[in-house]
Amino acid sequence: MGSFSSFRLLLFLFVTTLATSPPTYFPGILQSSLKKSAKIVKPKIPYKTHYFPQILDHFTFNPKSYKIFNQKYLINNQYWHKDKGAPIFVYTGNEGDIDWFAANTGFLLEIAPKFNALVVFIEHRFYGESMPFGKHSYKSAKTLGYLNSQQALADFAVLIRSLKHNLSSEASPVVVFGGSYGGMLAAWFRLKYPHIAIGALASSAPILQFDDITPWSSFYDAISQDFKDASLNCYEVIKSSWAELEPFSSYKEGLAELSRNFRACKEVSSIYSARDWLWEAFVYTAMVNYPTEANFLKPLPAYPVKEMCRIIDASSSSPGATKLKRVFEAAGLYYNYSKTEKCFKLEDEPDDHGLHGWNWQACTEMVMPMIVSNESMFPPSPFNYKEYSDDCKKNYGVRPRQHWITTEFGGNNIEQVLKRFGSNIIFSNGLQDPWSRGSVLKNISASIVALVAEKGAHHTDLRSATKNDPEWLIEQRNQEVDIIQKWLSDYYLDMKQ
Amino acid sequence: MGSFSSFRLLLFLFVTTLATSPPTYFPGILQSSLKKSAKIVKPKIPYKTHYFPQILDHFTFNPKSYKIFNQKYLINNQYWHKDKGAPIFVYTGNEGDIDWFAANTGFLLEIAPKFNALVVFIEHRFYGESMPFGKHSYKSAKTLGYLNSQQALADFAVLIRSLKHNLSSEASPVVVFGGSYGGMLAAWFRLKYPHIAIGALASSAPILQFDDITPWSSFYDAISQDFKDASLNCYEVIKSSWAELEPFSSYKEGLAELSRNFRACKEVSSIYSARDWLWEAFVYTAMVNYPTEANFLKPLPAYPVKEMCRIIDASSSSPGATKLKRVFEAAGLYYNYSKTEKCFKLEDEPDDHGLHGWNWQACTEMVMPMIVSNESMFPPSPFNYKEYSDDCKKNYGVRPRQHWITTEFGGNNIEQVLKRFGSNIIFSNGLQDPWSRGSVLKNISASIVALVAEKGAHHTDLRSATKNDPEWLIEQRNQEVDIIQKWLSDYYLDMKQ
Repeated sequence: MGSFSSFRLLLFLFVTTLATSPPTYFPGILQSSLKKSAKIVKPKIPYKTHYFPQILDHFTFNPKSYKIFNQKYLINNQYWHKDKGAPIFVYTGNEGDIDWFAANTGFLLEIAPKFNALVVFIEHRFYGESMPFGKHSYKSAKTLGYLNSQQALADFAVLIRSLKHNLSSEASPVVVFGGSYGGMLAAWFRLKYPHIAIGALASSAPILQFDDITPWSSFYDAISQDFKDASLNCYEVIKSSWAELEPFSSYKEGLAELSRNFRACKEVSSIYSARDWLWEAFVYTAMVNYPTEANFLKPLPAYPVKEMCRIIDASSSSPGATKLKRVFEAAGLYYNYSKTEKCFKLEDEPDDHGLHGWNWQACTEMVMPMIVSNESMFPPSPFNYKEYSDDCKKNYGVRPRQHWITTEFGGNNIEQVLKRFGSNIIFSNGLQDPWSRGSVLKNISASIVALVAEKGAHHTDLRSATKNDPEWLIEQRNQEVDIIQKWLSDYYLDMKQ
Repeated sequence: MGSFSSFRLLLFLFVTTLATSPPTYFPGILQSSLKKSAKIVKPKIPYKTHYFPQILDHFTFNPKSYKIFNQKYLINNQYWHKDKGAPIFVYTGNEGDIDWFAANTGFLLEIAPKFNALVVFIEHRFYGESMPFGKHSYKSAKTLGYLNSQQALADFAVLIRSLKHNLSSEASPVVVFGGSYGGMLAAWFRLKYPHIAIGALASSAPILQFDDITPWSSFYDAISQDFKDASLNCYEVIKSSWAELEPFSSYKEGLAELSRNFRACKEVSSIYSARDWLWEAFVYTAMVNYPTEANFLKPLPAYPVKEMCRIIDASSSSPGATKLKRVFEAAGLYYNYSKTEKCFKLEDEPDDHGLHGWNWQACTEMVMPMIVSNESMFPPSPFNYKEYSDDCKKNYGVRPRQHWITTEFGGNNIEQVLKRFGSNIIFSNGLQDPWSRGSVLKNISASIVALVAEKGAHHTDLRSATKNDPEWLIEQRNQEVDIIQKWLSDYYLDMKQ
């Protein structure tokens, strides 16, 4: 797997232009599956853990399709009025361990008392503890072959149906919630399993980031715009800093010096390690450009993009500071806001939340083409599908199915397709989040609606409320509650007839 | 596979009560896969045959999922106005070879000129020539595992998308059509792939024949009602004829005598062969109780149930005629209306249309519980899921997934679920058809509608028009055309916006 890694959380791309004869690779903050997970302190969450005997392959009937594995799910029933047919709120887990998502998705439990709802978080197969082949789950395409979104959706369907049966709660309506890839799953679940979920809140769900539905440059354009909005100087410094990396590859002690400058724990093997490390800091900071202090990927202050630019702008006046030094200092906000890092793991960032399965998904179904345009602050970079595919073949032994997601789930002409089909989906987005550009930002029908927060970031609405939440965020969440209330009223009314 | 056979065309059941210590088996007119197909004259159809390189497994990414097989499809483009974005009418093939369905589904091509439509018939995987593993396709669960409805729907999606791309006709709307299991597939295709098909005509599609949505006795009750409506005496004769079979198993020459009485080509090995042969004649005659002469399963006169009862009623006055003899004469209408049979193949009826894959589907996903109630004219018969499952395990090495279809496609509370979800489906049914009771017989919303013809049989509407068609049938087809026209108008209007 070598240099194979990726931005997790749906961030997956090729960058090939900085090197003269570059290897095709994926920059990644949360490094490849060969890197070991750090021991991190698990968050304390108010849920009870359960395991469901799930079937390996829902869509074939080979003898080995019947294999059973334990799928983890979490339940909180402290607010549930079971006897009154109160609703069940289900989080459709995405590419990481479910405790982490539960800890960062306080919204469900916070609104549960208002609805007397049961709250369930279901872990996605091949993540966290839900490993169909135990420690061999990531061994090869023969095992990983069962890791994909359609199997995951079927898992949710089977588990929810069984859970309702076991709780004697068949009449309880289910609402699904998800953020990021989990939001895509929530939206798709409502579309594919309307008989199981009466509605979906899909937060920051880039279901249109496939084929050529969304411009390929939009992701990096959005990030660049975030930084430009914070400070034009900041944007320009970052944009022109990349060229300062190249000299370090041109002389004998260059990498050693670069590593010292970047306070690397271990000397880097290539200038691209430093580049990716910076790159990722900007990408993730834009994604989590939350209006309050938060700790999703890393601990960060409120509006961290502005804070990063403040660092760059402040150092712009000091005469000795190269652009590279200034962006390095800015990246330190992302990697070391808590001031606990003595040195930086430029090539060895641990995969704290078990996200590495996304690499496989990106190499099979989740082909999201991205390029860096000239207007972006990142080094220009094309998308070469052949190289992408070859790299997947080399790393996993299989090639992507480039157009499968749009064949299975649609996306082209979504406004026309869903105008007269389907109902009860909220697509919520924050425009600070680069993924918002690949999501649904306009109302499609009376009940397939878009809630767009100009200052919002990656699934801000799903996070726990804080005392510092701005008015627009409180308002967005209130709208969501009102809409869900409407779905439930309709449901109870329909069931009486 | 031994005595393993089934009613094809969605007819699959256990009958266990007549024998004192019965084997669990499936009565079947079109006998088991071990029996060889007769050489039959292929119908001449106005279509050009094509083959599409289809992927074996859409829902896993194991290396062997990528295997390609040739899926057969038929095209008629003689009426198509391609340049004007005219529609594509697709028949979603069911459990038999596609030429046979094309020959018996004249409706699409007959209405094509009105819509300037392209007409496509797609063969279902594992039927006809579309064998993923060639002659080894039915070898075991390892190969048959890929035969199921979800894979078939994905085949349709991939093929249609590719076809439109290759024809440079991405803007052409697709309407899907299907009858019986093909109708179930058409309805499910619209629900699961609304981005690929703008609407579905699902004729005689028993999507509610699962779990306990439809009473388990309804199928045989409906047939009994058909015969009772034709003649109460006829119904009573049939009902009491079964008991006359039993004595033939009680003495040495009994089976030989029974075989002579039934003009069997070969002596039967059990009285149940004769029973099933009769049983099937009544079932299929009720299903194809068409208002005109037709040749779908066999050549038959108009309203064949009435004709059968006429035979039974007429012979009721002859003193020497036992009830068994009278029902045997009636069954002759079904098996020998064309007067070409010198003897009857009671245990060796050939599988002319390659339908035997339905046995596998019934043993995995298509679990349709059926019983014979005391009011029925058939011998009372319970449904024992354990025996059913054990028999599947014995025959195929795998067990059914009893609740999978309703988990994947829904069905429970369908009126509430689809009242506010989905659009553009016609469920057409004829009440003569026993499958109509497991279908949708009431309008669900403004655009998910039921067209019910009291005198209609199994997908009567999809057959070619004849000069003898009754007014109600002409009217039903006209309504279908009008509704499809509305879908298309909406589509063209939406695409302009």
